[in-house]
Amino acid sequence: MEIQELVRQLKTPNNSKIVMLVADGLGGLPVEPGGPTELEAAKTPNLDALARRGVSGSMIPIALGISPGSGPGHLGLFGYDPVKCLIGRGALEATGVGFALGPKDVAVRCNFCTLDAAGNITDRRAGRIPSEESAPLAVKLRQIKIPQVEIFVEPVKEHRFVVIFRGEGLGGNLSDTDPQRTGVPPLEPVPHDATSRGTAEIARQFIAQAQQLLAGQPKANGLTMRGFSASPQLPSYEEVYGLRAAAIAVYPMYKGLAQLVGMKVVGQPSTLAEEIDVLEQAWNDYDFFFIHFKYTDSRGEDGNFAEKVKMIEQFDAIVPRVVALEPTVLIVTGDHSTPARLASHSWHPVPTLLVADTCRPDGCEAFGERQCLHGGLGHFQAIYLMPLALAHAGRLAKFGA
Amino acid sequence: MEIQELVRQLKTPNNSKIVMLVADGLGGLPVEPGGPTELEAAKTPNLDALARRGVSGSMIPIALGISPGSGPGHLGLFGYDPVKCLIGRGALEATGVGFALGPKDVAVRCNFCTLDAAGNITDRRAGRIPSEESAPLAVKLRQIKIPQVEIFVEPVKEHRFVVIFRGEGLGGNLSDTDPQRTGVPPLEPVPHDATSRGTAEIARQFIAQAQQLLAGQPKANGLTMRGFSASPQLPSYEEVYGLRAAAIAVYPMYKGLAQLVGMKVVGQPSTLAEEIDVLEQAWNDYDFFFIHFKYTDSRGEDGNFAEKVKMIEQFDAIVPRVVALEPTVLIVTGDHSTPARLASHSWHPVPTLLVADTCRPDGCEAFGERQCLHGGLGHFQAIYLMPLALAHAGRLAKFGA
Repeated sequence: MEIQELVRQLKTPNNSKIVMLVADGLGGLPVEPGGPTELEAAKTPNLDALARRGVSGSMIPIALGISPGSGPGHLGLFGYDPVKCLIGRGALEATGVGFALGPKDVAVRCNFCTLDAAGNITDRRAGRIPSEESAPLAVKLRQIKIPQVEIFVEPVKEHRFVVIFRGEGLGGNLSDTDPQRTGVPPLEPVPHDATSRGTAEIARQFIAQAQQLLAGQPKANGLTMRGFSASPQLPSYEEVYGLRAAAIAVYPMYKGLAQLVGMKVVGQPSTLAEEIDVLEQAWNDYDFFFIHFKYTDSRGEDGNFAEKVKMIEQFDAIVPRVVALEPTVLIVTGDHSTPARLASHSWHPVPTLLVADTCRPDGCEAFGERQCLHGGLGHFQAIYLMPLALAHAGRLAKFGA
Repeated sequence: MEIQELVRQLKTPNNSKIVMLVADGLGGLPVEPGGPTELEAAKTPNLDALARRGVSGSMIPIALGISPGSGPGHLGLFGYDPVKCLIGRGALEATGVGFALGPKDVAVRCNFCTLDAAGNITDRRAGRIPSEESAPLAVKLRQIKIPQVEIFVEPVKEHRFVVIFRGEGLGGNLSDTDPQRTGVPPLEPVPHDATSRGTAEIARQFIAQAQQLLAGQPKANGLTMRGFSASPQLPSYEEVYGLRAAAIAVYPMYKGLAQLVGMKVVGQPSTLAEEIDVLEQAWNDYDFFFIHFKYTDSRGEDGNFAEKVKMIEQFDAIVPRVVALEPTVLIVTGDHSTPARLASHSWHPVPTLLVADTCRPDGCEAFGERQCLHGGLGHFQAIYLMPLALAHAGRLAKFGA
């Protein structure tokens, strides 16, 4: 039996509160051999105090050696097997713009393209049309009506947009219409199973109507579709853990990922301080709070060690406000490492901290990668973080008599 | 999905070089309570320097408590699930003499035996006939011809030899012909599935022709067959990892194991120094090098602590020549522990070291069992060593967007 299924059977509600603070891309690497990582270099008096109260550990997001994208990284933190719970590319794109995918949805990534008079593609990206020109065109496509299906069109960026078809019995197993080259017309969407036949017909109608609406556009007079995918249909936090869960994030992608597991997106914060304002306001309404801080990852991706250190210090500075709420369990972690030295996501374990009254002392004196190697959580896989949180929150019954 | 399958999907070729130095049976035990292990007692300045540069860990070859044979031990190091990828006994015997099993091969272990005039076995091991008498008899059996099948006969030791049948559609699911007692004739080979019927007929013809060739021999005038097994047909290093892999070993068994995963056996070294000569010569032609050092295990099996220490020091002495080649990733490990105190393979974890520019400092100052307990690799299973090596070599793409 998988751990999540076991937890589902043992879950026991109570009034505890769990907070998961995620500093995206938290783990790092030294610039100089033997030097400090970003987290070790940062002055983090508040996190260090938590390390003395709680247990630390070195968390493996997926498996040793595997560098996760944001999707699998977060699913692991949320306790869902990130290798089994694959999110299709269309579903991820919808999620990335914060669209809450439902069980009847099929999402597909679309590109505006340029077609010549004969209907052949002359530019697969419509001249990389700027967002301010493409977004109104995507919105225009919301006029499209097809019987018995609800349609959502969301602009993404430049030539990209996403379409969601919502209806009964729609499959997501279809081939792309992008021929991956110019001089030929877009392909027909071909269904690969019985339930996807209806989706193919809907896609054909959508394309035909879109072509009429886009006729006369100088660049974006056609479209291609890629990565059809049904909603991953993950069981919700409420079902699995018995938790009313809130997600507090600035960026759409993380709101979308949280919605995939049934978290409610609360507030519209645009800074970390505002995220904590939202946390304070929503405190009485939820049992679990996922709070996402983006900029540790962004500065890591930029390859900027010093700026990533500063972001970690900003993150540390809000910790007292969270501690003041007296959560039963407070977790501090990341969805993966993003060492500034590599300027990319990496496979390195993520320094992780769990604070609760029921922690066994582990001798860690500060929060950092080296200390975490010797912490009470050991070297552990991300999917065990939620079971540990629930246990420390008193929300798991004994297994067996 | 298993980790090897995930790695296969994420593999990304580049020009990096990976070296895996395997000191067979490396892990040990103290002789006196609290004393040093063989590795801790040995003077290993070069390995200690690597421990300061890289990450250390305590590697579990199969699972806690399981003492591996050479086959499973190496398959784990190579990244193949050693419990699922079983090598049949005939296949292992063929591998043990360095025979490169192909996908159309069925291998079987044979014993010379002594038959009386009535065809009953009087000695199941032909009086433990010495190798210098039995080897020419095994070679004589190479005269045997059977239509549509290629036959290989390889002497092993004393009464033992191995036969490989190569042909289309040969199954390996047959019962042994050794009745496990004397006073009765050898049994007929009985096929247990449809594809093994042809193999049974071939085996019968082989036995009949062999009996004629051996007629008149005083001891070895008959044979029995045991452990029929088809080639395990493992996917190759090239398929799974995208690596052109070279194996450098002195002993046939390790060359055979490497060939099972598609490594090319290079050179004909007879000492460790010659193995490194081969490494230097082959450096430009391969991406991955498996280098096997036997004598740490041999002296462990002998129960000779002091001599195992010396072998570890000899092993340490060649490390600078490997480092001078500047591999992207250098791994130092063993396939299992062979504590001199137990004079046998054991279940104890294996001290393991991975050195690359992308290692996170772990505070280890020397290479030894105690230090490895606190290293950055943690306590990990052998099958994750190759994923880690590929990650540090920049050969794995990000998992998911």
